[in-house]
Amino acid sequence: MNESIQLIPGNSLITATPEEGRMLAVKMSRLIIKLTQPDAEMRDKLRPIYASDATMLILIGQSVAIEFATIAAANNYWK
Amino acid sequence: MNESIQLIPGNSLITATPEEGRMLAVKMSRLIIKLTQPDAEMRDKLRPIYASDATMLILIGQSVAIEFATIAAANNYWK
Amino acid sequence: MNESIQLIPGNSLITATPEEGRMLAVKMSRLIIKLTQPDAEMRDKLRPIYASDATMLILIGQSVAIEFATIAAANNYWK
Amino acid sequence: MNESIQLIPGNSLITATPEEGRMLAVKMSRLIIKLTQPDAEMRDKLRPIYASDATMLILIGQSVAIEFATIAAANNYWK
Amino acid sequence: MNESIQLIPGNSLITATPEEGRMLAVKMSRLIIKLTQPDAEMRDKLRPIYASDATMLILIGQSVAIEFATIAAANNYWK
Amino acid sequence: MNESIQLIPGNSLITATPEEGRMLAVKMSRLIIKLTQPDAEMRDKLRPIYASDATMLILIGQSVAIEFATIAAANNYWK
Repeated sequence: MNESIQLIPGNSLITATPEEGRMLAVKMSRLIIKLTQPDAEMRDKLRPIYASDATMLILIGQSVAIEFATIAAANNYWK
Repeated sequence: MNESIQLIPGNSLITATPEEGRMLAVKMSRLIIKLTQPDAEMRDKLRPIYASDATMLILIGQSVAIEFATIAAANNYWK
Repeated sequence: MNESIQLIPGNSLITATPEEGRMLAVKMSRLIIKLTQPDAEMRDKLRPIYASDATMLILIGQSVAIEFATIAAANNYWK
Repeated sequence: MNESIQLIPGNSLITATPEEGRMLAVKMSRLIIKLTQPDAEMRDKLRPIYASDATMLILIGQSVAIEFATIAAANNYWK
Repeated sequence: MNESIQLIPGNSLITATPEEGRMLAVKMSRLIIKLTQPDAEMRDKLRPIYASDATMLILIGQSVAIEFATIAAANNYWK
Repeated sequence: MNESIQLIPGNSLITATPEEGRMLAVKMSRLIIKLTQPDAEMRDKLRPIYASDATMLILIGQSVAIEFATIAAANNYWK
């Protein structure tokens, strides 16, 4: 495993607001892709594919939703 | 990340009713697609593809269901 | 968003029985499809596709399962 | 919705054992397919397709796993 | 349903260690496939397909992850 | 089942930090693939396929997200 990539920015699931928690979910989701495909050039090639394919956009949304569920629970839903 | 898109309208998961919570789930799900594909013209092209493909409609439904699970728990299920 | 569609019939996740909770999960799952594809004629065209494709039937089952998990928790599992 | 199909046999998520809970998860998963495709002849045609396609077997397994998670929680994991 | 297959070995979700819980998740996941395709010869044909297709390997991983989530909760995460 | 593969390194879900928990999620996710396809040569062939296919990268991300949800709960979200 490429140990030099930090998978959770700030090494914490706790955020000040739901919006920041949502951004963390997006980042965590993207960092797993970076870990699996560490070649920046290859990722640059794949990016337009994600962004123009309807199925992939939806699957990315599902990933973020699953990450966010964990972050929201960690923050006791910012109640 | 495009910091100018607000990913959670109102920056809160708390809603007055289940119906409003459901609408928030739909919006949050759509805003991730907007973040991943910020080009409005491209999204306009993709929209009819979502809406006329049975598999995509079901996958969108799964996304909303996952987001809603989090929102419902945050609201203690509006009990 | 088409505000005229009610996404949660009765605006509540609370049901008298597990069976009624299961029906609510099915309805909520279908109403998201209705929201995403509001054209009734188009939905009528898609319906036989869902019902005769094995993969789609399974994916619909997954959607209902996720919605039901939320409804069951809301009802404290009708214990 | 075809109201004549009972979606949860026994109208309860409570079972005596984990094994019975697992069987209930399988049944609930199959009954959603029956609801979506009520034509028995059509379902008979689809059955061999499920059973001989590796992807579908795995997706069915995911459905059962999600249903079982709910049933297991309802039974406090039979502890 | 083929009643002769036991779907949960030992008829319990409780295990001594996380490792044993993980093995149980793998077994439960495989037993659903066995239930859906009871023909051993057909399963033998499908096995190399699972094991050499990248998408299927990932989908199997998702199944095991969902089963394991339930088992881990049942064991209070072996804390 | 190949009993010689350890599926959970350290046989524990408890980690010192969220970052270590995330790495454990990645490892657990990969070890299931190793269990299902124990042939190292075959896995070496599949690795570039994972890493260069956008859909697979997203599906791997979903797997890690599900594993991480369990690990995060086990650690009480490192609060």
